[in-house]
Amino acid sequence: MNTQDHISKEYNDELEQLRAKVLNMGGLVEDSFNDATKALLKGKVQLAREASKEDYKINALEVSIDEDCSNMIALRQPAASDLRNIFAVVKIVTDLERMGDESEKIAKFTAELSTNSHSMKFYNSLKSLVQNTREMLSAALDCYARLDAEKALEVLELDNEVDAEFINVNRILTTYLLEDIKNIEDTIKVMWCARSIERVGDHAKNICEYVVYIVKGNDIRHVIDEESRQGREK
Amino acid sequence: MNTQDHISKEYNDELEQLRAKVLNMGGLVEDSFNDATKALLKGKVQLAREASKEDYKINALEVSIDEDCSNMIALRQPAASDLRNIFAVVKIVTDLERMGDESEKIAKFTAELSTNSHSMKFYNSLKSLVQNTREMLSAALDCYARLDAEKALEVLELDNEVDAEFINVNRILTTYLLEDIKNIEDTIKVMWCARSIERVGDHAKNICEYVVYIVKGNDIRHVIDEESRQGREK
Repeated sequence: MNTQDHISKEYNDELEQLRAKVLNMGGLVEDSFNDATKALLKGKVQLAREASKEDYKINALEVSIDEDCSNMIALRQPAASDLRNIFAVVKIVTDLERMGDESEKIAKFTAELSTNSHSMKFYNSLKSLVQNTREMLSAALDCYARLDAEKALEVLELDNEVDAEFINVNRILTTYLLEDIKNIEDTIKVMWCARSIERVGDHAKNICEYVVYIVKGNDIRHVIDEESRQGREK
Repeated sequence: MNTQDHISKEYNDELEQLRAKVLNMGGLVEDSFNDATKALLKGKVQLAREASKEDYKINALEVSIDEDCSNMIALRQPAASDLRNIFAVVKIVTDLERMGDESEKIAKFTAELSTNSHSMKFYNSLKSLVQNTREMLSAALDCYARLDAEKALEVLELDNEVDAEFINVNRILTTYLLEDIKNIEDTIKVMWCARSIERVGDHAKNICEYVVYIVKGNDIRHVIDEESRQGREK
């Protein structure tokens, strides 16, 4: 955020505080996703129970940051570039909060899974999906911290890999269902977890798009989707 | 929106146009959800294919409305109540766009379902979930159109019913999986559809919360969740 142009030191501080608060919220979301998926991959029920209790902190930060944005717009009447920044924050915190929800869902399903070691085999099929999504989330937050639009354009491409992994995981889990119908309820719960992980990738992609919007001022959402749609219709 | 207090007729018109545009987007989202779920319930593959192609219109409206909001904030420096309104619109269009995505997913899965009449039996289990969610979506948009906060507080309670229906549907679909393992892929696709329908209920709830925020000025998001969390911890 280029804060050097602002005459008021107080205003500068407010913008910096806002940015710090978003990064703080991002850190909590990352922790919560990492804990939930660690619990899932290792079958740690206790960790899952703890992780599912942390979401209220993320929710409280969303409400508080929205309020800060609203107050800043009302009191400071921000110039175009600051307004774009604040506007993007309003969108970013929505995505962060939804990621918190998905992590909470993963933790809750994990806490409900039966603890027999047999079911461990399908956790292995999730490893690569989890790893890619963790990296994508971490990189997206990093792009926001540095306001690095070039990197953001690279990171958002990773969502295609996450989506492909998800389809793959689904296929593997379906074969487990066929092989071992007794384990059906656990397998379906793991499917819901996989879906939640994939959704976190979608939200990380959204954050990258907002970083591009902050830095370059153009709205690239749906542009790629639209290009591929027109391509298909040709 | 109380536009009588504004001196500038042009500004009044802009606020009215913004509101009309959000309602227009809401109408498209409702159509797309109704078409996708109709195709699902009746097994109409052709309707599903058509429904899955309409999402780009909703996406384009989201980008356009965000731009309008940003321009209005920059040029008009809105007073507190108008700012709250514009702020809520920025959030509402995000939820509308996500509902469009969920409808698109339902339509795509439906288009992929095999057309054998056998699988029709589990569409019946979705009827009530679909009906409740349609009503909730329609009522939520109505609350925004009338800015009716009292009604919004009633409508958001319906999400509990939608969530309960979803759990029910899941249970029924699991028994179908056990009975007829050959149909596993279709059944899982129908499960994904059920999940998307349930998500539409969540987004409709969010819209109701924003209506309360516009009218009453207080942010009720997560308040109910937090109360139930504290209740559990006692």
